[in-house]
Amino acid sequence: MVPRYSRPAMSAIWEPETKYEIWFLIEAHATQKLADLGVVPESGAKALWDWWATNPKIDVAAIDEKERVLKHDVIAFLDWVADEVGPEARFMHQGMTSSDVLDTTLAVQLVRATDILLEDLDGLLDALKRRAEEHKYTATIGRSHGIHAEPTTFGLKLAQAYAEFDRCRDRLQAARKEIATCAISGAVGTFANIDPSVEEYVAEKLGLVAEPVSTQVIPRDRHAMYFSVLAVIASSMERLAVEVRHLQRTEVLEAEEYFSPGQKGSSAMPHKRNPILTENLTGQARIIRGYALPALENVALWHERDISHSSVERFIGPDATITLDFALARLTGVVDKLLVYPERMQKNLDKMGGLVHSQRVLLALTQAGITRDNAYRLVQRNAMKVWESDGQMSLLELLKADEEVKAAMTDEQLEEKFNLDYHFKHVDTIFDRVFGD
Amino acid sequence: MVPRYSRPAMSAIWEPETKYEIWFLIEAHATQKLADLGVVPESGAKALWDWWATNPKIDVAAIDEKERVLKHDVIAFLDWVADEVGPEARFMHQGMTSSDVLDTTLAVQLVRATDILLEDLDGLLDALKRRAEEHKYTATIGRSHGIHAEPTTFGLKLAQAYAEFDRCRDRLQAARKEIATCAISGAVGTFANIDPSVEEYVAEKLGLVAEPVSTQVIPRDRHAMYFSVLAVIASSMERLAVEVRHLQRTEVLEAEEYFSPGQKGSSAMPHKRNPILTENLTGQARIIRGYALPALENVALWHERDISHSSVERFIGPDATITLDFALARLTGVVDKLLVYPERMQKNLDKMGGLVHSQRVLLALTQAGITRDNAYRLVQRNAMKVWESDGQMSLLELLKADEEVKAAMTDEQLEEKFNLDYHFKHVDTIFDRVFGD
Amino acid sequence: MVPRYSRPAMSAIWEPETKYEIWFLIEAHATQKLADLGVVPESGAKALWDWWATNPKIDVAAIDEKERVLKHDVIAFLDWVADEVGPEARFMHQGMTSSDVLDTTLAVQLVRATDILLEDLDGLLDALKRRAEEHKYTATIGRSHGIHAEPTTFGLKLAQAYAEFDRCRDRLQAARKEIATCAISGAVGTFANIDPSVEEYVAEKLGLVAEPVSTQVIPRDRHAMYFSVLAVIASSMERLAVEVRHLQRTEVLEAEEYFSPGQKGSSAMPHKRNPILTENLTGQARIIRGYALPALENVALWHERDISHSSVERFIGPDATITLDFALARLTGVVDKLLVYPERMQKNLDKMGGLVHSQRVLLALTQAGITRDNAYRLVQRNAMKVWESDGQMSLLELLKADEEVKAAMTDEQLEEKFNLDYHFKHVDTIFDRVFGD
Amino acid sequence: MVPRYSRPAMSAIWEPETKYEIWFLIEAHATQKLADLGVVPESGAKALWDWWATNPKIDVAAIDEKERVLKHDVIAFLDWVADEVGPEARFMHQGMTSSDVLDTTLAVQLVRATDILLEDLDGLLDALKRRAEEHKYTATIGRSHGIHAEPTTFGLKLAQAYAEFDRCRDRLQAARKEIATCAISGAVGTFANIDPSVEEYVAEKLGLVAEPVSTQVIPRDRHAMYFSVLAVIASSMERLAVEVRHLQRTEVLEAEEYFSPGQKGSSAMPHKRNPILTENLTGQARIIRGYALPALENVALWHERDISHSSVERFIGPDATITLDFALARLTGVVDKLLVYPERMQKNLDKMGGLVHSQRVLLALTQAGITRDNAYRLVQRNAMKVWESDGQMSLLELLKADEEVKAAMTDEQLEEKFNLDYHFKHVDTIFDRVFGD
Repeated sequence: MVPRYSRPAMSAIWEPETKYEIWFLIEAHATQKLADLGVVPESGAKALWDWWATNPKIDVAAIDEKERVLKHDVIAFLDWVADEVGPEARFMHQGMTSSDVLDTTLAVQLVRATDILLEDLDGLLDALKRRAEEHKYTATIGRSHGIHAEPTTFGLKLAQAYAEFDRCRDRLQAARKEIATCAISGAVGTFANIDPSVEEYVAEKLGLVAEPVSTQVIPRDRHAMYFSVLAVIASSMERLAVEVRHLQRTEVLEAEEYFSPGQKGSSAMPHKRNPILTENLTGQARIIRGYALPALENVALWHERDISHSSVERFIGPDATITLDFALARLTGVVDKLLVYPERMQKNLDKMGGLVHSQRVLLALTQAGITRDNAYRLVQRNAMKVWESDGQMSLLELLKADEEVKAAMTDEQLEEKFNLDYHFKHVDTIFDRVFGD
Repeated sequence: MVPRYSRPAMSAIWEPETKYEIWFLIEAHATQKLADLGVVPESGAKALWDWWATNPKIDVAAIDEKERVLKHDVIAFLDWVADEVGPEARFMHQGMTSSDVLDTTLAVQLVRATDILLEDLDGLLDALKRRAEEHKYTATIGRSHGIHAEPTTFGLKLAQAYAEFDRCRDRLQAARKEIATCAISGAVGTFANIDPSVEEYVAEKLGLVAEPVSTQVIPRDRHAMYFSVLAVIASSMERLAVEVRHLQRTEVLEAEEYFSPGQKGSSAMPHKRNPILTENLTGQARIIRGYALPALENVALWHERDISHSSVERFIGPDATITLDFALARLTGVVDKLLVYPERMQKNLDKMGGLVHSQRVLLALTQAGITRDNAYRLVQRNAMKVWESDGQMSLLELLKADEEVKAAMTDEQLEEKFNLDYHFKHVDTIFDRVFGD
Repeated sequence: MVPRYSRPAMSAIWEPETKYEIWFLIEAHATQKLADLGVVPESGAKALWDWWATNPKIDVAAIDEKERVLKHDVIAFLDWVADEVGPEARFMHQGMTSSDVLDTTLAVQLVRATDILLEDLDGLLDALKRRAEEHKYTATIGRSHGIHAEPTTFGLKLAQAYAEFDRCRDRLQAARKEIATCAISGAVGTFANIDPSVEEYVAEKLGLVAEPVSTQVIPRDRHAMYFSVLAVIASSMERLAVEVRHLQRTEVLEAEEYFSPGQKGSSAMPHKRNPILTENLTGQARIIRGYALPALENVALWHERDISHSSVERFIGPDATITLDFALARLTGVVDKLLVYPERMQKNLDKMGGLVHSQRVLLALTQAGITRDNAYRLVQRNAMKVWESDGQMSLLELLKADEEVKAAMTDEQLEEKFNLDYHFKHVDTIFDRVFGD
Repeated sequence: MVPRYSRPAMSAIWEPETKYEIWFLIEAHATQKLADLGVVPESGAKALWDWWATNPKIDVAAIDEKERVLKHDVIAFLDWVADEVGPEARFMHQGMTSSDVLDTTLAVQLVRATDILLEDLDGLLDALKRRAEEHKYTATIGRSHGIHAEPTTFGLKLAQAYAEFDRCRDRLQAARKEIATCAISGAVGTFANIDPSVEEYVAEKLGLVAEPVSTQVIPRDRHAMYFSVLAVIASSMERLAVEVRHLQRTEVLEAEEYFSPGQKGSSAMPHKRNPILTENLTGQARIIRGYALPALENVALWHERDISHSSVERFIGPDATITLDFALARLTGVVDKLLVYPERMQKNLDKMGGLVHSQRVLLALTQAGITRDNAYRLVQRNAMKVWESDGQMSLLELLKADEEVKAAMTDEQLEEKFNLDYHFKHVDTIFDRVFGD
């Protein structure tokens, strides 16, 4: 975790206090159910909840100290709680194994983290929608291969991003479901020493569902899927970040990240306004993608479990969620405050002397009875002249002057093919598809 | 693609003939709809379908030859079809762009591939279920960290695998939906020269849905998600493969891959029976995981599209699906014919002199009023003796002879704690969770 | 392996014929040495070499057929050779294990592949050097963050690429050494049944060195390193490809991939000249990077060996080397024939109204006694006006008119700061560093 | 960075204080050289070094506060130093760009980190060598595919690990050289405003070499190579960790991680001694591998530079080096204190009733004139009986009783083939190869 790329609400989920709080809740709920079942005395559960009602401060340092001696974190924690609660605490953890606590805790943490990420996505979607509506008909050149292709609108670019992040939201919802399971099944998952109803009870109390079959651990294919989804979201984030970086290039300059008054772009070149937020996001996308791999390698644990997944998760649990939370919020800010320059978009669009309309002419020639191949050659020979003039010549004028073209189309017909609105007639349809209910 | 790791039905999807067949269908359906809309003459569509009805052979070499000159695959194909069909073919591809054809074709190929993979998973699930039922109560030692823990059943191991692959099936279904979209939206996705209804028509004919907003290309977050799901499935496959490899170790030997009569295990050591199928699957899991990365990097295409994704997909499209198909079939065979040795499982289970029952004794001592810490020490001092005797001593006998234990528990009480069936009382519950409707 | 991304010399290395040829050489050299040592009769070695001298055709199909029955590739091969050579062939493979043959063969194949890749890099370096010299003083704007920074030369860009690929060449040389080892050490690497001198003899004959300690297999950290180096080379390749893609953008257009007369850029837009080669290379870089991962996962084989690395290597051995060979050759072609537009470079350089000289002015003001902070503000307030005029205003003129600036610098002093050659005075030094001996 | 997986010396390298200390050194050395060149007054350099001689405390909070306003870290730092040193500080950073400072600092940090990692490897190599010598002739079964193959010694296993980490040491040395470069070349690397001799001077003072050609940034192929080497080392680490985990399996138990008296293996099963250190290392290997990917993706920066690499490096710079340092130290401890059980090794070795000697018999039969195929069948039919008896039958006795074998070999000849020492006659040769000078 890099502090500068973290936000408090998400970071708090991964603090030791939170972890121990969740541990306690799992143990206490389990003890309660065990008491209900008559396995342990009601006084055992009551003692725990009574203590909890005093809103006790969890003494992380004391627990850590115990762990140093005992070399076992859950035993250290139980010892500390026993010190605080007294002898009635001995009924805690009956029939359970450490992993029951650890894995269920990770589930609770990931669920909480996911709920924040879902909110982040909602914020991003809101910003994208607002800016998309704002620029629904802002004409801009569409580019394939970095080369001018045909006109599109800036709103459509953002609508695409909206649709992409909307899919990401669905994926994250599905991923949340993947990891929202609870295991309280004992040493190798047989419930030998604990009734399955305890697992169901604790699951329900914590907003989880019971893991159908665990083997001491919750199976790691769930987590592999989860972190893979974060990697996909990061990649979509990168796509939008790269788009902004392209648009802010000196030669393009159709949009810019918001630039605050006090900000210095460069220690050497005072005129520079660099797309540093989106470059920063590009790097964060790489690092979040990198976390998916160890998660995938974690799946093949040995037999009922080995603990190799644990050190991986100590890194990627916090790092992937904290960084993605930060990054999504940053991206939302970029979209929300993005400086958009419609005049420049139009200027760029006009730059190629009308070449962007070449396909329409090509089609019209075909429809006028010229073979596709011939039409292609006719358009291309004029297009090439425009291209080589660096946009100084006009395709329309050249075509009007081309004898073979003239034979097939009138000036009026040609002019109609250079009308920009023609390209936007289905924008509304697409917006309906994306934003409609 | 490695021929030895491929099966014909899956490979056929990625043959050039299949690709061109799908290209034709897309073009012909699109032309049909354009004719219905009155954009092109009905004769244009009819000519195509009439030719198709003759069941023509697609001449891959001829198309390749054209591509060498034209340096454009779709144009080469259209030229070839025009040669075959005649002048009426000129109405094909009107208002479309190459990517409309290419991306929709990839969607059709991935959908077909996924349908085979779903069948593969069904076969694997069937085999797992059958073997799980067969060994529902076959006792075996559960291991954490590679160390004996507590008893479980071989059926439970397989039930876990079943549940895991059942999740993989759900993920693959979701992944299929991700990539089953059709784009016929023109040069930058604005439908400038083609009506959106064409896209919907073609989508429906091909069993796809219309891509809500495309930008010449279908967005690659879909494919990133798809190949990530294959990576997760591969990882689950690896888990089961590793389990078999562990069980076949000389010292463990609780199960073995089926060994056919003519097979030689080693050129040097005739006695060897090696788990080569599951080792092979372990490697295949690695390679399939490796394909998820370039798919993730493909998401951030420039502006409306660049073609960098294409070379990646020429590899991973076929390689990931063909290899996974082969691997799932191989894994199904391993499960189906797995030689299982219940006697050896029991022998291993008994190996530790009853240590696996130590937790039950620990709990009983706690319930008999001894503090957790004391109970732990009582059990551990006897357990250590058994451990150091390499299973020659019996934990039960040692406990019976321990004065402090004696003070808390009778011999009968102790003996009851060493009953194996105790561990299996909830197997039925777990099976219901996994296999119940 | 994707046929369209392969070249014959490299592909041939991975053909079955080549593999079996190397197998034979290993077996025959080993038998020769065993004969020299008196372990097997000289006639055994002679029979092999006599047969080989007849330049026999290796019957891949026959060997494959045997493998189908025997389910062991090396045994199948030995059987086939025995069929051809007669009973004297029975002395082959004495004391050896299959892996001795397989791993040493992979070493020979990777060495041969590396030699081709080294030649590829030499070709690329030649092209880069030639074009760098050609454009040593071709002025162009240097860009950081995609934003105009200060002037540089196009030759310097290429010199950087040269230096980078020169490092890649060194890395590849080191990687070649990593994998150029021979193992003939028997079943678990103890030389129990074969003298270490055989390994040394065969190694020397094949241009390898003896693996100091093998354990049936050559350790896979060597191959992990090898494929990681290919991944680094691929990434450098991507950097140069991305540079070309940027330069070819419509708005930038400082360079273009060579565009052959017959080529069509787009089925719809005849004017388009797309940087498809470098986009294609970008994708190939991704796929080659993806191959490093399974190679890294191959390192941790179980005990003396397991065969999980093998299926991985059947993919990445050919695919990584064949694709990189193709890609390097393609990149060399791109560099070699790159269309470079110096006028456009100058035009872009002038675009910002002289803003690129702002740092020099800043320094001059500081040296004239103004505090850094004040100098920064002076420059920035004028720079901002230029920026907002979209390069229509001239920074030099604005500065000349700024009272505070005037107080510190004369017009002549200011003009001197806008001299382009100032920036290129150390180009020669850098070229000496990069290309000097 | 996960605190529990970090050690102080390595962590200190990545603290803000250290970073700012290096920043100062770079700026002060550069100012000194500029003074020597007469570009700035000598008093400018003197003021910096005088202040530094007072051993000033770097006020991280104050610098951070400035960064919050200025949104530029290097400018914030320079401002703070200027506050401390006074007006003479204005000569700092002349002609330099932020990246000169940042990239050279990263080089210094990585060099320091590497020096620690090299020491770590030395420690590991020492431990491996000591334990290898100790167990040079400790007989143990070699295993391929997890199946008993032929005898080897425990010393040979460790010698292999030694050779592997010795290669890793060489790779790390090479990687150190890759990243030990200094760039002080100004805004786009042209030395426009700073003489190349400054770069050379600072490089020499900091133990680096001048980067031949930088483009504002030091090229990231260097770092990609560096982190790839860490990934290879991590993978080798995993191999040894997995070996220990296998050896500690209950059924194998040939070695164990040292188990300290106070340690509890499991909250539920007091008898358990789990290989948790090596499992933990397995996970750490995965995470370090995962860091190589974003480093590879960092190579293709845009034009002269973009800053996307920076956020990646804020993670992986500290995380990869800190974690690898911790992991290597942990692994050294595991090797150093590993509990080795030679009796158990011998017992396992004997387990298969002599099957491990089958290859020697096979060879002897061949040399006695029986065809390879027949010899194979003779051995295999007896070997299979032993195998099926689970090691209760003896291969030697069965062979002695086999009529066809009897016809070819005497009892004495057969017995000689079952002599264990036969396998170890070249151990000394291998040790010489690995440990010899």
